[in-house]
Amino acid sequence: MTSQTLKGFRDFLPNTMAIRSKVISTLKAVFESYGFAELQTPTLEYAEVLTGKYGEEAEKLMYLFRDPGGRGVGLKYDLTVPLARVMGQYQDLPKPFKRYQIQPAFRAENTQKSRYRELYQCDIDTVGTTSPASDAEILAVISNSLSTLNFSDFTIRVNSRQILFDLIIKSNIPSNKSLTVLQSIDKLDKKTREEVSLELESKQISPLQIKDLFYYLKEAQPDPQFKEIMDLAKKMGAKNVRFDPNLVRGLDYYTGAIFETMVEKPKIGSITGGGRYDQLIKTLGGPDLPAVGTTIGLDRICDVISDLNLWPDLPKSPTRLLVTVFSPELLNNSLSLSQSLRSQNINTELYPDPAVKLDKQLKYASAKGIPFVAILGPEEIEKNTVTLKNMSTGEQKKLPASNLPDELTSR
Amino acid sequence: MTSQTLKGFRDFLPNTMAIRSKVISTLKAVFESYGFAELQTPTLEYAEVLTGKYGEEAEKLMYLFRDPGGRGVGLKYDLTVPLARVMGQYQDLPKPFKRYQIQPAFRAENTQKSRYRELYQCDIDTVGTTSPASDAEILAVISNSLSTLNFSDFTIRVNSRQILFDLIIKSNIPSNKSLTVLQSIDKLDKKTREEVSLELESKQISPLQIKDLFYYLKEAQPDPQFKEIMDLAKKMGAKNVRFDPNLVRGLDYYTGAIFETMVEKPKIGSITGGGRYDQLIKTLGGPDLPAVGTTIGLDRICDVISDLNLWPDLPKSPTRLLVTVFSPELLNNSLSLSQSLRSQNINTELYPDPAVKLDKQLKYASAKGIPFVAILGPEEIEKNTVTLKNMSTGEQKKLPASNLPDELTSR
Repeated sequence: MTSQTLKGFRDFLPNTMAIRSKVISTLKAVFESYGFAELQTPTLEYAEVLTGKYGEEAEKLMYLFRDPGGRGVGLKYDLTVPLARVMGQYQDLPKPFKRYQIQPAFRAENTQKSRYRELYQCDIDTVGTTSPASDAEILAVISNSLSTLNFSDFTIRVNSRQILFDLIIKSNIPSNKSLTVLQSIDKLDKKTREEVSLELESKQISPLQIKDLFYYLKEAQPDPQFKEIMDLAKKMGAKNVRFDPNLVRGLDYYTGAIFETMVEKPKIGSITGGGRYDQLIKTLGGPDLPAVGTTIGLDRICDVISDLNLWPDLPKSPTRLLVTVFSPELLNNSLSLSQSLRSQNINTELYPDPAVKLDKQLKYASAKGIPFVAILGPEEIEKNTVTLKNMSTGEQKKLPASNLPDELTSR
Repeated sequence: MTSQTLKGFRDFLPNTMAIRSKVISTLKAVFESYGFAELQTPTLEYAEVLTGKYGEEAEKLMYLFRDPGGRGVGLKYDLTVPLARVMGQYQDLPKPFKRYQIQPAFRAENTQKSRYRELYQCDIDTVGTTSPASDAEILAVISNSLSTLNFSDFTIRVNSRQILFDLIIKSNIPSNKSLTVLQSIDKLDKKTREEVSLELESKQISPLQIKDLFYYLKEAQPDPQFKEIMDLAKKMGAKNVRFDPNLVRGLDYYTGAIFETMVEKPKIGSITGGGRYDQLIKTLGGPDLPAVGTTIGLDRICDVISDLNLWPDLPKSPTRLLVTVFSPELLNNSLSLSQSLRSQNINTELYPDPAVKLDKQLKYASAKGIPFVAILGPEEIEKNTVTLKNMSTGEQKKLPASNLPDELTSR
């Protein structure tokens, strides 16, 4: 057997899962506090469901194959296509349908790029209303999610498709060039104005048009509906939301507001991306339903938390205390102690093998990152005490067994 | 676009997810209280990793295909094979390695059988020790998990490979017939003794051998090591554990104790199955590590909870309260109220569209199963009150806005 994961696929060992698991439970709690409910869809879909939305470029990145029954199937590529299918398949779902979904998606990325081929996506969407309050709510959920995760240094950039197309019209740029021009504008956060100018010139945009474009970009103002979204988002407590006329996202897809979140450090690009897409569900063959939502990049968020050490106190192990076993004869004493602590809501691991030396049991606790160890030898048992060792300080003390729960929860 | 899930695959809509999500969080908490930590492995593995363990029969049930890079890959078939791979790939993991894993596995089942092709598995295993305390702990975790999930009417049947093989030897049945004879014994909980006798005769077992076999089955006694497991399990608080010499599970796989859990109602077979498998990890090409563990059938457990209505009070929606919007001018008042309630840890949904009539907003709450609705009209706002409607009783009352949190948490 090759003891290897496939390239681009990852094992999440317990120490990595600790952060991921807490990120997921934190996000779920925030989403549910706004009334978003969980949806899960299958890993496999009909190939024709998957390939409806994207062009040939994306199809190349999909895991498409024939199942043992000969059906054309594939691994899901994102969470938006399954949402569109769900809206078509269960048309009696109450609207607005507010769902969140946290599941892996699959990309057959080129090996050289060393990107993940299985990535966990986390999407929240509101389907069935065009109300600006639902756009604003997505911004509030993003902001609240990040704050709850202990992020402080983030910016939610927002713009709208209308504002971008207005710029094009005002600058007298022909509409058939709007997409390519906007793709150049999108680079303004990475390239200089001069570099972008040169790029635009190479696209046969005249110096006057470029001058006008930059002028109107600088002077760009939110339109009334967009202002309402910004205003409501603020009232809903969204922090660090900034109008940014340079923001361009997939324009074949979005129909109104667009938004993405950046962090200053580490340099990893956007950690959320979304917007309003009122035509997409219909385009995919689903019902004619407007929608707004965002993807939250779970992998990147976990990376930021690790890199910036945002959760210094997160335990590496779920176990609070390892109860060691002094000798085979004393196994029952250790067993009783661990039972009693567990019933008092302290995650307690009983070392399973009384034949293993105490020293090795302590090393096990240390290797696993268990913060406390209890030692229960003949002396302790006689006096109804326990020796408690703090594994990070090395401090060791004897205390009455009944004091153990308080000692373990107070720290 | 075909708005259809593939046969054998399921969407979990929000009302179904409520139970699943609570089952999973409950199980995780129990597992972690014993020091089991979470592991996740990729959806895809090298085909040769997947096909190492099982015979051709199982390979037919696997989703095996070539990825866009031409590699032979497949969807994971269970959680044991990935565990064996992990133990080989990360040989410095501290032992005993106690992990739980809750992820989907894939079976290309025959369509006629109408079984699930994507099923969520939930496994707990302790790798790296032969100590009976680790077998006992698995039994304790099963019992504690089921009790915490509100199950009462379950039986954990336990037996051991040694006891079964002793019966064969004592009955003078040649060892080359032991597997087929044990397969017949396994049917004793569904067939009568006479039917099983006939089956054994057809397998060329003599009347005397059959008579002896039934005699020794009736008289079978746990051996000392097995007794120790049962004794420790009891001390660890495992309930409803019963020695059952008729229990036979995959014998090519298990090397010691075997266990499975049955519920009386509904009739759905076993909801857990496991045992000790000290050779398997090595057989799969991994390191020589003993292991013991169990699978907990998540789908079946969710079915039992639904069928027996074990959680009558579980809300259908994560939302506790819908704050309606009386008119566009009063949107800000409803927004403020929902903000304030959310900050007091009450899951609050703000109806997003002020243009929709109140009546329709109430119907939305009812369709989604939201238990309470707040109405905030000009009269309420003037007096700083809120009209609260209980959606299940229809009861409606006006109360000071500040009393709302208490009112909503006290019920």
